[in-house]
Amino acid sequence: MYDNPYYSQELHGPYEIFEAGAFELEDGGRLPDLKLAYAVHGKPNANKDNVVLFPTWYSGTNKLLEQVYIGPGRALDPAKYCIVCVNQIGSGLSSSPHNTPAPWNMAKFPRVRISDDVRAQHKLLTEHLGLHELALVVGGSMGAQQTYEWAVRYPDMVKRAAPIAGYAKNTDHDFLYTDTLSEAITSDPGWNGGWYASNAAVHQGLRRQAKLWSVMGLCPEFFAQEGWRALGCTSLEDFQVGFMEGLFTQMDPNDLLCMAWKWQRGDVSRLTGGDLKAALKRIKAKVFVLPIDTDMFFKVPDCKKEQKLIKGSELRVIKSVAGHFGLFGLEPEYHAQVDQHLNDLLAIDV
Amino acid sequence: MYDNPYYSQELHGPYEIFEAGAFELEDGGRLPDLKLAYAVHGKPNANKDNVVLFPTWYSGTNKLLEQVYIGPGRALDPAKYCIVCVNQIGSGLSSSPHNTPAPWNMAKFPRVRISDDVRAQHKLLTEHLGLHELALVVGGSMGAQQTYEWAVRYPDMVKRAAPIAGYAKNTDHDFLYTDTLSEAITSDPGWNGGWYASNAAVHQGLRRQAKLWSVMGLCPEFFAQEGWRALGCTSLEDFQVGFMEGLFTQMDPNDLLCMAWKWQRGDVSRLTGGDLKAALKRIKAKVFVLPIDTDMFFKVPDCKKEQKLIKGSELRVIKSVAGHFGLFGLEPEYHAQVDQHLNDLLAIDV
Repeated sequence: MYDNPYYSQELHGPYEIFEAGAFELEDGGRLPDLKLAYAVHGKPNANKDNVVLFPTWYSGTNKLLEQVYIGPGRALDPAKYCIVCVNQIGSGLSSSPHNTPAPWNMAKFPRVRISDDVRAQHKLLTEHLGLHELALVVGGSMGAQQTYEWAVRYPDMVKRAAPIAGYAKNTDHDFLYTDTLSEAITSDPGWNGGWYASNAAVHQGLRRQAKLWSVMGLCPEFFAQEGWRALGCTSLEDFQVGFMEGLFTQMDPNDLLCMAWKWQRGDVSRLTGGDLKAALKRIKAKVFVLPIDTDMFFKVPDCKKEQKLIKGSELRVIKSVAGHFGLFGLEPEYHAQVDQHLNDLLAIDV
Repeated sequence: MYDNPYYSQELHGPYEIFEAGAFELEDGGRLPDLKLAYAVHGKPNANKDNVVLFPTWYSGTNKLLEQVYIGPGRALDPAKYCIVCVNQIGSGLSSSPHNTPAPWNMAKFPRVRISDDVRAQHKLLTEHLGLHELALVVGGSMGAQQTYEWAVRYPDMVKRAAPIAGYAKNTDHDFLYTDTLSEAITSDPGWNGGWYASNAAVHQGLRRQAKLWSVMGLCPEFFAQEGWRALGCTSLEDFQVGFMEGLFTQMDPNDLLCMAWKWQRGDVSRLTGGDLKAALKRIKAKVFVLPIDTDMFFKVPDCKKEQKLIKGSELRVIKSVAGHFGLFGLEPEYHAQVDQHLNDLLAIDV
């Protein structure tokens, strides 16, 4: 446990902390004092049927979701919906390796699965916030994994679901890619088996992870168009070092490893003995599956295979030149497309 | 300098050695005793106008080119053509960091560019083999870079050119990807700035590079179809460890770094002050540009942009489920497509 200023109210707030208490994990471990950091935009209506749940992706926080997806006139308008953004376990804001007291800190933080996040979020919503219906669960990447898990695990509670750029069951290719992200960190001698004094000791590994994200998180077309100019960068190096390494070197290595392990093993068919078809058949929500056309690892054809197994669902492909990082909403066209799809989905009576 | 049994006549022969002698490099360095390893299949005809040059790709050797592309009944039939396969500098068979005597060995091996390879190959062909016309230059990946360099640098000598899955001028995205390959090696403490006793000391870095190749060299569809079964592998791990790590851990780290540095900087416009249009305008050869549809880093749209700048050229997209590694010819359909394109190209009077 150490103080990392990146994970703070100053940078990512305002957010609240839900004290979930002792929490049994799917893999058999236990977190004695689970905390979930979350932010609510808007209020529940009288019927409490206007609630939207929005879990975070790998390395993302509630703040980014707010900035990119939520606002007046947007599909997710706080004047209309009560939008609950929850930071996943390992995010650095909720319980994570770097902020958990000994003895469960750092390398000893237990293995957490997507299902643990979803069960903890269920507790937050039902026991703490008194919410029992979700008009929509929406999430990108690991947020999509949580979205699928929600729709399969709590089919009566989820009315609509919009997984963006993510799978219900992770693929071998994606597993290998995530391995390379984690190995970038664990190969840094400064990582020291997870027992470093602070993230600064592992900056070389974090820089290498940042480069892997540039290669696979974006896409060739992004670089051909010098898409980094939209971020105010003036050169490729300014983007890679100034932006990407600047961002990732602030993060905690063990927190990233915790999320990566979870990401690799995302699989709703764990609920149905490995039968993906049976798992997706459980879904009662109206589902829009929203892959990004240039995504290098959550591919349209693989998303489509899953979508075909979900009754009454629709596949709607989002166009972007930013690959998986289209999720960050660098393009105005991205906002417009997502809002259109979410508006259409929310307009459907279920 | 050390003995690495992977780079041997037993595994990659038979090949000959051309003693090119002292060789000045484009970046100002000098190799006092450049050697090129090459293999010739077939014989020159009376007019010596049936010669095909086939340079190697990153980590590949003449043997693989022979196995995948050359044979009776194939487009490259030794009964019809004299096919000269040349191992690039840094390949481990030609002059390379690991096989060059001190003081230019290991980390002190000078920087080599694609243009150096092409000038050395020109010397081999014209001075040693007495060949002054190339019916075809064909190569994949870094072999495509050499193919483009040949067509631009020696326009009167090259009658036809078939760059497969490669660029005339490398892209920023590809540069970053190649960085991740090299960083996988240089981040291994065993690499020791290039001064290791043998490749075995750097096996962890080589294993990480092997994983990056699985992620980016292949493609999601390959794993979705369990394409590794075509290699006799029985599981994902059997493929990743048994095949990929088994292959790359035999290679020399500095040799791979030498090739990667060259690959990153491949750019025919160095001949024309940075003007790619002017460089490609120099080409007199009939050119077929042959990208692979699922390639993750040599993308069809980027290959097409270059093809459009080459007069009278054709873009022919090869279909494969193996991404960039389609080049390895795991699919019978790949052989059929390449042979068709090369037969068509060779049938054109120039």
